[in-house]
Amino acid sequence: MDTSELFVYGRQPVRELLHRSPSRVSKLYVREHLNPATLQELYSLCSLNKIPVTTVPGRKLLEMVGKVNDQGIVALISPVHYHDFDDWMSTIDLQKKPYPFILLLDEIEDPNNFGAILRTAAAAGAAGVIIPKHRQSPVTPAVFKTSAGTAGFVPIMRVTNLNQTILQLKDIGFWIYGLDQNAGQLYWQEGYDRPVAIVIGSEGKGIRHKTLDHCDFTVRIPMENNVESLNASVSAALLCYEISRKRNEG
Amino acid sequence: MDTSELFVYGRQPVRELLHRSPSRVSKLYVREHLNPATLQELYSLCSLNKIPVTTVPGRKLLEMVGKVNDQGIVALISPVHYHDFDDWMSTIDLQKKPYPFILLLDEIEDPNNFGAILRTAAAAGAAGVIIPKHRQSPVTPAVFKTSAGTAGFVPIMRVTNLNQTILQLKDIGFWIYGLDQNAGQLYWQEGYDRPVAIVIGSEGKGIRHKTLDHCDFTVRIPMENNVESLNASVSAALLCYEISRKRNEG
Repeated sequence: MDTSELFVYGRQPVRELLHRSPSRVSKLYVREHLNPATLQELYSLCSLNKIPVTTVPGRKLLEMVGKVNDQGIVALISPVHYHDFDDWMSTIDLQKKPYPFILLLDEIEDPNNFGAILRTAAAAGAAGVIIPKHRQSPVTPAVFKTSAGTAGFVPIMRVTNLNQTILQLKDIGFWIYGLDQNAGQLYWQEGYDRPVAIVIGSEGKGIRHKTLDHCDFTVRIPMENNVESLNASVSAALLCYEISRKRNEG
Repeated sequence: MDTSELFVYGRQPVRELLHRSPSRVSKLYVREHLNPATLQELYSLCSLNKIPVTTVPGRKLLEMVGKVNDQGIVALISPVHYHDFDDWMSTIDLQKKPYPFILLLDEIEDPNNFGAILRTAAAAGAAGVIIPKHRQSPVTPAVFKTSAGTAGFVPIMRVTNLNQTILQLKDIGFWIYGLDQNAGQLYWQEGYDRPVAIVIGSEGKGIRHKTLDHCDFTVRIPMENNVESLNASVSAALLCYEISRKRNEG
């Protein structure tokens, strides 16, 4: 990816971007000592859309965008386009075989894991990846890089409340599977012969309690040698490809 | 891991270590301006055992080991014990079910991938992991960390010539499987009902040509959405757990 595509600068262009496509903005950089009056609208737009704002010296902006008339305002663009969850739901066909499967990520903070998960989800043919707006990094340039450029090959949706999203998915016919090392069932013992949404938690903590309560099924990955957990990207890959195998072998 | 366990310092202790267990030494640090005469034996031991030597300012050594009488000589210890390939071969039981399976890594340079592979190999119950001495990093502290401390849970062997090792493995009854995206067979279509050695190449380049010629079988991971490859750790995990699944489901 050409990094020059990653920034929009200047007061008016950034203002328009924040109005029209706030979901495309990962972060706003503002040069220190700018007149607060000129920033008020930008600040409230960022606040409204939960976009972090950082004040930096002018040379930082110079490093980002070079010698341009940036007016002290630079927006960092997301390397991927996020899909709207409701729009996506309205287009997904739950009757058609092979049934769709999607991933819900809960607190996957490590960019290496996150990028690898997006890459595997695309390769395994997932119909979407849902991430929470909080407690989970967006698709940063680092994540995009570790995905080997495949982030965005499948729709990525950011949602405010993962548990609420799970209820909506259930409503339209998805079955929720949680990967949980306390589960009785092994992941390869399930048939997955239905629309499937898999919840993947962080390596250390797993899926949060309340979210686990919303799962229709839990499965675990068997482990020998007293290994307690796997990389989140490895866990996600095993689930994705087990489903892909069962879809393909029929 | 307590990092204080990672260093041995002082001329005599390091000298003995290099004589007795050179395979445990990852690197030798020498303070600049030391008398070359006192270093001659250490240098030749390192050269003999292909251990890199780096000359550093005294403050670097201070950072590593603190205020001790290091005499300007510090050895970085490998966080894992490497097993001898011939010893390991003499103990492995190829008749007993479930049949053993092992991994052969070819040019896995990224510490995140390498650590994740060692972790997954342990969890999936691999009987060993073989890495080449050249073109592949040893188990550094970074690799040990990304393995979540599980590196060494299964025997790790370092060999000089991977192709020679493959021939030896074939001789005693292993079947060699190469993961290759040009293969006709999908990885889940194989039965793996025999002693199995899987060769995993680097993400970009795959398995080297000559090594591929030595494989009895090649298998590939199906990929959608024009994804061309997966993280090496994800590929290795899919193979390991497909074998584990077949071993367990019978």
